[in-house]
Amino acid sequence: MPIRVGILGATGAVGQRFVQLLDGHPWFTVTALAASERSADKPYGETVNWRLETDIPAYARSMVVQPCEPGLACDLVFSGLDSKVAGPIEEAFAQAGYPVISNSKNHRMDEDVPLLIPEVNPDHTAIIPHQRQRRGYGRGFIVTNPNCTSVGLTMALKPLADRFGITTVAVTTMQALSGAGYPGVASLDILDNVFPYIGDEEEKMEREPLKLLGRCDGTEFTPAPIAISAQCNRVHVKDGHLECVSVALSDRTDEAAVAETFRWFTALPQELRLPFAPAQPVVVRDEKDRPQPRYDRDAGNGMSVVVGRIRRCPVLDFKFLVLVHNTIRGAAGAAVLNAELLKAQGYIGGR
Amino acid sequence: MPIRVGILGATGAVGQRFVQLLDGHPWFTVTALAASERSADKPYGETVNWRLETDIPAYARSMVVQPCEPGLACDLVFSGLDSKVAGPIEEAFAQAGYPVISNSKNHRMDEDVPLLIPEVNPDHTAIIPHQRQRRGYGRGFIVTNPNCTSVGLTMALKPLADRFGITTVAVTTMQALSGAGYPGVASLDILDNVFPYIGDEEEKMEREPLKLLGRCDGTEFTPAPIAISAQCNRVHVKDGHLECVSVALSDRTDEAAVAETFRWFTALPQELRLPFAPAQPVVVRDEKDRPQPRYDRDAGNGMSVVVGRIRRCPVLDFKFLVLVHNTIRGAAGAAVLNAELLKAQGYIGGR
Amino acid sequence: MPIRVGILGATGAVGQRFVQLLDGHPWFTVTALAASERSADKPYGETVNWRLETDIPAYARSMVVQPCEPGLACDLVFSGLDSKVAGPIEEAFAQAGYPVISNSKNHRMDEDVPLLIPEVNPDHTAIIPHQRQRRGYGRGFIVTNPNCTSVGLTMALKPLADRFGITTVAVTTMQALSGAGYPGVASLDILDNVFPYIGDEEEKMEREPLKLLGRCDGTEFTPAPIAISAQCNRVHVKDGHLECVSVALSDRTDEAAVAETFRWFTALPQELRLPFAPAQPVVVRDEKDRPQPRYDRDAGNGMSVVVGRIRRCPVLDFKFLVLVHNTIRGAAGAAVLNAELLKAQGYIGGR
Amino acid sequence: MPIRVGILGATGAVGQRFVQLLDGHPWFTVTALAASERSADKPYGETVNWRLETDIPAYARSMVVQPCEPGLACDLVFSGLDSKVAGPIEEAFAQAGYPVISNSKNHRMDEDVPLLIPEVNPDHTAIIPHQRQRRGYGRGFIVTNPNCTSVGLTMALKPLADRFGITTVAVTTMQALSGAGYPGVASLDILDNVFPYIGDEEEKMEREPLKLLGRCDGTEFTPAPIAISAQCNRVHVKDGHLECVSVALSDRTDEAAVAETFRWFTALPQELRLPFAPAQPVVVRDEKDRPQPRYDRDAGNGMSVVVGRIRRCPVLDFKFLVLVHNTIRGAAGAAVLNAELLKAQGYIGGR
Repeated sequence: MPIRVGILGATGAVGQRFVQLLDGHPWFTVTALAASERSADKPYGETVNWRLETDIPAYARSMVVQPCEPGLACDLVFSGLDSKVAGPIEEAFAQAGYPVISNSKNHRMDEDVPLLIPEVNPDHTAIIPHQRQRRGYGRGFIVTNPNCTSVGLTMALKPLADRFGITTVAVTTMQALSGAGYPGVASLDILDNVFPYIGDEEEKMEREPLKLLGRCDGTEFTPAPIAISAQCNRVHVKDGHLECVSVALSDRTDEAAVAETFRWFTALPQELRLPFAPAQPVVVRDEKDRPQPRYDRDAGNGMSVVVGRIRRCPVLDFKFLVLVHNTIRGAAGAAVLNAELLKAQGYIGGR
Repeated sequence: MPIRVGILGATGAVGQRFVQLLDGHPWFTVTALAASERSADKPYGETVNWRLETDIPAYARSMVVQPCEPGLACDLVFSGLDSKVAGPIEEAFAQAGYPVISNSKNHRMDEDVPLLIPEVNPDHTAIIPHQRQRRGYGRGFIVTNPNCTSVGLTMALKPLADRFGITTVAVTTMQALSGAGYPGVASLDILDNVFPYIGDEEEKMEREPLKLLGRCDGTEFTPAPIAISAQCNRVHVKDGHLECVSVALSDRTDEAAVAETFRWFTALPQELRLPFAPAQPVVVRDEKDRPQPRYDRDAGNGMSVVVGRIRRCPVLDFKFLVLVHNTIRGAAGAAVLNAELLKAQGYIGGR
Repeated sequence: MPIRVGILGATGAVGQRFVQLLDGHPWFTVTALAASERSADKPYGETVNWRLETDIPAYARSMVVQPCEPGLACDLVFSGLDSKVAGPIEEAFAQAGYPVISNSKNHRMDEDVPLLIPEVNPDHTAIIPHQRQRRGYGRGFIVTNPNCTSVGLTMALKPLADRFGITTVAVTTMQALSGAGYPGVASLDILDNVFPYIGDEEEKMEREPLKLLGRCDGTEFTPAPIAISAQCNRVHVKDGHLECVSVALSDRTDEAAVAETFRWFTALPQELRLPFAPAQPVVVRDEKDRPQPRYDRDAGNGMSVVVGRIRRCPVLDFKFLVLVHNTIRGAAGAAVLNAELLKAQGYIGGR
Repeated sequence: MPIRVGILGATGAVGQRFVQLLDGHPWFTVTALAASERSADKPYGETVNWRLETDIPAYARSMVVQPCEPGLACDLVFSGLDSKVAGPIEEAFAQAGYPVISNSKNHRMDEDVPLLIPEVNPDHTAIIPHQRQRRGYGRGFIVTNPNCTSVGLTMALKPLADRFGITTVAVTTMQALSGAGYPGVASLDILDNVFPYIGDEEEKMEREPLKLLGRCDGTEFTPAPIAISAQCNRVHVKDGHLECVSVALSDRTDEAAVAETFRWFTALPQELRLPFAPAQPVVVRDEKDRPQPRYDRDAGNGMSVVVGRIRRCPVLDFKFLVLVHNTIRGAAGAAVLNAELLKAQGYIGGR
């Protein structure tokens, strides 16, 4: 029996990806689309300014958009809400008993909310009972996925952290335009240019991986003791954030062992064969000039992270590139995989 | 009395910049254009595939291109030769008595050849007598300027090294397409993409600044004891290499002092009022999102390096951005300024 | 004695070009900058989101922005106002006695307002006394310049119309992003794309050239009897509208005569040596692949129109390319030249 | 029983598309890959510089590349050869008994070679027996598909020609970079630019549609009596040629009838349900700003032509946009559909 899902912020950039990715999902059926008042009561196909290259899925075209208020006929909600409004709306849904699987930043660093990547810290969902009790949420709860750049970085760090230990990370990003939503970056700001500032992005990258790679004892998170320095830039690419990473490891090793550690990494989502879990969470390219955004962003249907150019670093220990599809593994796809994990763990289901 | 100059490789990308920049130079008059056999004996305007936005200077249009062999009627030569052929040709000219002011990489790391940025190490020209003697060059000699990315990085490091000492540098670049010459990067390789590999570029960036910031005692160079790690990428920008830099300093300081150190830096070329010396070698932008290639690459007529976003680094000490116009300060303009310094120092002149 | 000018809409995209182009003008001195209430009472340098590659001119940086209301201390106003508000504001200024030299579309097709290109129809200013009388404007009046694409097309048509007569024109444009102002076109709409629709643009191109090439008897305009069909597209170019034109002529001729007619065309602004008049209104390029936006848009400091690829058309008579710098000759520069003509004709001066 | 096919020029841009598109084809199995001597005897995966976003199909990776000479073990050959060499090689294969399904321009206008679009002129294959006899080809023959821009234009003209008659066509193109092959257009030639010249392209567009829309009586082609004028430009788009078309029709009609004529057009490939035939050969978009290359090029898996912005033309009768995926329907996909038609017509099969 399918699980009924609603999408909050369904007309926005992330919301459109939810609508697209959930088309034909084996476990989830979209039964509610919700957006701001401007769109409410209109058929989705008439109110959305659809910005994806595939057509609007047939199922969504004539669904009537509802306001973002509890009462939606569904078993859980995905939130692609703008962070300006996401905070209280998500809380209201959780209070009303809905599991809220959010892509927004508002609750990511809350002390009782899991920041979740199923391949990295699936055990962090153990805090959900504590969250429910502390907030009086009943059946509802909030789970978040990280910022798009943090997902890519952390998925690459995880196998290294497990095997060698990580002490230090320096990362410089070249991020895609779709990360800024729509209309987002003005063409005049990026044509023949790099835009070397993304508000609050470096702070997120220096903070979120620590929670993700840290421990959860059921009532508290302990961040991992890693120093991270991030520099973030916007470049003239549609999709796919590319990250130049340097790491210092606790144990000594060599490039070949680093590559093999990436290549053979699998985790709970692969073991559980979750529908959105890529066969290889981390794909390693051996060519001297890969990964590249246009060629590699769709690896694993956009759910794999692609690593390449692994080499020694004269300052820290190793350097490599990481590529992540920012609107799939870095946003809507991340949330769908989170929901799949939560279902497998028994936190969500039909009601 | 003007100094007569020749340009080797005059039809190439760097050669064209020489032809453009030397138009109306107060000290130098172009009296010879030399290129490969394919172009020899033809009027420059008919054989060059001119790729700059300004028109071919009137003086050059009807000059007949000569072969790249000694015998050119000039007092010194600028070399914009392709590195595949530059090595022996430059040596032949030096042997024949010409000062060779080269942009090519071939002799940069030679133990008796100055790698020169007039604001950074003007005293390194003191090795010229030793070079002449050792190679039996008579009046001729070879002086080189660094790789385009090294120029920008080293000009930014110099004032910090002088005042605070530098121990460690990590740099990630986003480099312009003009750096690859013409035809250079295929449009299909860079449209909606980043190309994360530039052959030999990281090695140059990790090596050249050490020579530039090192010492010269008249017969030998001692590199500076700094660890540098570089990651180099090509992005969809026409001109202007942007570099994300982190540094560890020997002395403790703060962001304001770093900014002031950049801002007030001047050096010998400014003191000597060399024609191509920018009033401010390092321009500091205070906006949170500058420098940007399209807006800042022409600062100081493309001869200033532009710095911005100075902030603390959680891994090393400080992070900042550096922008350099890769074909002016990073190539032809660098060589012209080198020649100006050499004239001021008495190494070149009419003969 | 300099003529004092004000700029309405000084913080917008066209207004910024006025501020830039009027820096150092031999006849005009900017004495007033006016913009919307949001900017009023602030120093220009602090309120403008400056989007040009050159720095804000020193004269403008600390000028305090005033509201767009009569009372500005100047002898005429340039209007770069958004068409949503330009209509009544321009009328109010004319009513208050100011000559209004407008780039906005609102009054272009008014039956008593000149739509003016000094090289094309300088005699149309003869309707100004009629306009003043009809509208009770006293010393004030309104003069407009055409839409950016119409300027380029009409300047190329003018010499052909004079010499051979024109009956039919088909034109397809590839227009630059700066034509949409700032923020204008979203980067996601134009990356790896063409945007094949520009609101109201085709209508302007089919209508404005007829008024420009028509006659004015002092009280009435008679449009030229030409059929024009336009198709307008936005492409991934910063500045410079490129137009593919086909024309049918009344008289028979050949490609060489067409080229010579373009090449030797000059008009009243050249004769009067107006400061912004380019030496050659129409520049002809002989290469098989020119004009190109990046290489040719700055011809004549952006005030020349560049024509190329003149060849026979199997459907009409001749085909050729036209390039116009859309924000200089196509907007702010057009208005400045209009003001210069009006001064030369005695319609404006100090008061 | 599958038909065995070979690919000539398998390592080139068009050849790679053949390799990709034929992966899993229900009728055709690739049994031979042939390329220039440089690649011969090497595994395809090691010699090809693969430039498509999907990975090299598994079937092709280890196939050993053979020289482009008769003797290949297959029942027909697809030719993606460069036109510099295609002419005699294709003739040699036909002479040796191979049906040659070519994308190259060399034989397109031969008086006994069909220039074929299955939806437009499937009856033109009737000239094959005449070709065989005249050239002494035995079982072999040559069939060609048109130039990429001609395919799109002609597929849009066909339904109008059938229903209303066409007398005149004016077309301006904005063509994608992939049409120039790899490395093709230099990034410096197209960044912030339009390249307004494509060698021989306008001539092809003015000539090929006439043969396609003309008649074939079994021994001779009679071109359609239509005047066509083409202007061709390269723009900053990866895939998808956009064409601005104006047509004059023999019969009077209105926009709605034109749209319906496009929309309801189907032809023999749809009737025969050929594997590569799109359900709708011509897709009509009703939005005011479509088709756009990035959003519409993949319609019908890249085999549909997309039309939009149908409106009256003040010079001819109607204007509209046409978009064609230049490397699928405009090249490799066109040839595959041609082969499917020839199989359905009995001209090719196992041997």
